[in-house]
Amino acid sequence: MIKILVLNSGSSSLKFQLFDMQGAESNHFNLLASGLVERIGETNSSASLKFTSSKAHDTVDKLAQKKQLVRESPVADHQQAIETMAAMLKESGCMVSMEELTGIGHRVVHGGEHFHDPVVIDEQVLITIKKLIPLAPLHNPANLTGIRLTQQKAPGIPQVAVFDTSFHQSMPEQAYIYGLPYALYKKQHVRRYGFHGTSHQYVSKQAADYLGKSISELKLITIHLGNGTSAAAIQYGHSIDTSMGMTPLEGLIMGTRCGDIDPAIPFYLARETGMTIQELDDLLNKESGLKGICGQNDMRTIVEQAEQGDNRAELAITIFCYHIKKYIGAYIATLNGADAIIFTGGIGENSSLIRERACQDLQNLGINIDSQKNSLHSKEIMEIQGPTSQVKILVIPTNEELEIAIQTIKLI
Amino acid sequence: MIKILVLNSGSSSLKFQLFDMQGAESNHFNLLASGLVERIGETNSSASLKFTSSKAHDTVDKLAQKKQLVRESPVADHQQAIETMAAMLKESGCMVSMEELTGIGHRVVHGGEHFHDPVVIDEQVLITIKKLIPLAPLHNPANLTGIRLTQQKAPGIPQVAVFDTSFHQSMPEQAYIYGLPYALYKKQHVRRYGFHGTSHQYVSKQAADYLGKSISELKLITIHLGNGTSAAAIQYGHSIDTSMGMTPLEGLIMGTRCGDIDPAIPFYLARETGMTIQELDDLLNKESGLKGICGQNDMRTIVEQAEQGDNRAELAITIFCYHIKKYIGAYIATLNGADAIIFTGGIGENSSLIRERACQDLQNLGINIDSQKNSLHSKEIMEIQGPTSQVKILVIPTNEELEIAIQTIKLI
Repeated sequence: MIKILVLNSGSSSLKFQLFDMQGAESNHFNLLASGLVERIGETNSSASLKFTSSKAHDTVDKLAQKKQLVRESPVADHQQAIETMAAMLKESGCMVSMEELTGIGHRVVHGGEHFHDPVVIDEQVLITIKKLIPLAPLHNPANLTGIRLTQQKAPGIPQVAVFDTSFHQSMPEQAYIYGLPYALYKKQHVRRYGFHGTSHQYVSKQAADYLGKSISELKLITIHLGNGTSAAAIQYGHSIDTSMGMTPLEGLIMGTRCGDIDPAIPFYLARETGMTIQELDDLLNKESGLKGICGQNDMRTIVEQAEQGDNRAELAITIFCYHIKKYIGAYIATLNGADAIIFTGGIGENSSLIRERACQDLQNLGINIDSQKNSLHSKEIMEIQGPTSQVKILVIPTNEELEIAIQTIKLI
Repeated sequence: MIKILVLNSGSSSLKFQLFDMQGAESNHFNLLASGLVERIGETNSSASLKFTSSKAHDTVDKLAQKKQLVRESPVADHQQAIETMAAMLKESGCMVSMEELTGIGHRVVHGGEHFHDPVVIDEQVLITIKKLIPLAPLHNPANLTGIRLTQQKAPGIPQVAVFDTSFHQSMPEQAYIYGLPYALYKKQHVRRYGFHGTSHQYVSKQAADYLGKSISELKLITIHLGNGTSAAAIQYGHSIDTSMGMTPLEGLIMGTRCGDIDPAIPFYLARETGMTIQELDDLLNKESGLKGICGQNDMRTIVEQAEQGDNRAELAITIFCYHIKKYIGAYIATLNGADAIIFTGGIGENSSLIRERACQDLQNLGINIDSQKNSLHSKEIMEIQGPTSQVKILVIPTNEELEIAIQTIKLI
């Protein structure tokens, strides 16, 4: 077995997955275990691990043999979270010690302009990630903590950083320079970076495989709809534009984030209501988006409420889908036509309603959905365009952790 | 003669045009005089009036007979500006006294949600325009001053307010509600309003006339590129989306305004540089856009500099055109296909380079420009698409003042 551990260290959580990458050359991977330590630093912390019992490792399909460990006891800090992770992996039988690992892959949110690709972590890399903290003040410090503690726990095991931003570093200037003083770009690093890069890259490669074409001949629009949402224009394997910007606030409407708005609105609200910059920042990031429009940020709840006749929930869905539609149009222009549109992420993979409404009334652009195909549910790739659609429409389950494991094994 | 005076009263300027609308029924109008009082309240005020001598009124073409009056003397306030205007119009022979006027049309920037159409001004209208001042703190007060002083100067002459926003009041909720707390819409009137409505409406009607079709069967994308820039999606004569938002800051990149940016950027700059909200407001409105990218906000200068090898000027052009292209794509999606794209405004009417580059590499969307036709200059409508283009591309000179005169005569 070639064991790769993938870590996503947040400010109060630690997500991790353990893969066996033995079959990586033939695109065959096993997820051995998947875990989460939540509410780190609080009294009601909890840790859980899902794993397949050792004899069932050979195929991913044997979900029936999945087991779960749960621990409900305070986890004081990230150091204790890492210990908890190691202990639970040991208990599950998936991994006796960290020394078994061939490598560890870390999700890092912001790589700025420094990292165009994943990178093997050394001291210089850590210094650079630290320098980028102003660009991602909530995420990069937590990512760094995860890396440092893992290095202590598993010295000598190669570790790789995979950045949310790096896939989008291929964007041309026209897509990443804002209409702002150029000095802000040069001195303050103000530019579009884009996020969800690992997901956009993963599903675009999956799409190429599925379509039986080389990624280097495809023009794709990938739409990641989770709690955060973003769209990307991917030309011949390279991201050439994406909807999230310098931060993950710009672009499509999200669960609690506003997405695109008039940048003068915060100024108006400051004048009219006396709100401070910090309050405005919180308002746009935490109280806006779907939650702002209808009071809910979970799309399943919103769809249910709309079905029960809640006008505001209906409005939230309508606006959410209209923004997706406008980005589809914009990126068709960016790409001068697209071969396929790909929906992914929790909402993109599971909500036939959102997919249908985002693609509604686009038949004159050669885009239409087959309602019957769209209504199906599958854990595999689904192809849902209608027979007359010139653009393929695919639903592809994303797997950012697997992509991080793939990038990690590639580098070490 | 049916004389209509059109006024655009700014914070330190007064623009005015005098039309003879005798031929309005047959779409035949005469511009009698056009004037400007600048730098009101400063010591270096100036006033100028261009007019055609009285015998040449019958056609607009007799430009050779155009004459000009210029006054260089301090104009203390708007009252004095109105007096100056009346005196110069009298001196030119175009108008002996304000009592000759059939009506006066005023440009008013912000009509909020109250005015879906132009309106005859009465005391209630003035109260409403005043209430809307928070939405347009620079413009509405100046517009109000112009109206009040004109009422005093010409009592009994019907006056009409034509709003920059009213044409866009037909937008559906999905286009005007932001991903923000709904209470901000209900209580603080935060929504997309859109501007340049008079221009979008005028050129869309001109396009219908030119194409020999009813506006009620056309799907149009109108692109107004002046010092301010905006695009609109016009379906069957009604604006259903536009790029400017609650204020004229959102949307396409402009001379000094940033257009679309990540709304978190001001928060980041506040944290990193200590800038205040007012400084950030000024930065985004006055130091950004084309000027921010390359130091210049006049497109003619920028094109010259780019031709001389200035990389930053070249970049400014590239970004400016790329943003237009993305809006073309977005509005093609909004409209489910478009019959025509219309360029207007100073840049839109005069810069073949900008038109060509905004429409470059869109042939797979059925859009391509004929470079030869595009390179021509005309004061008439030009049709510039290539023979294989499924979408017509038109260049139409805008005339917001004439549109205000048309709306004024319609109402009185």
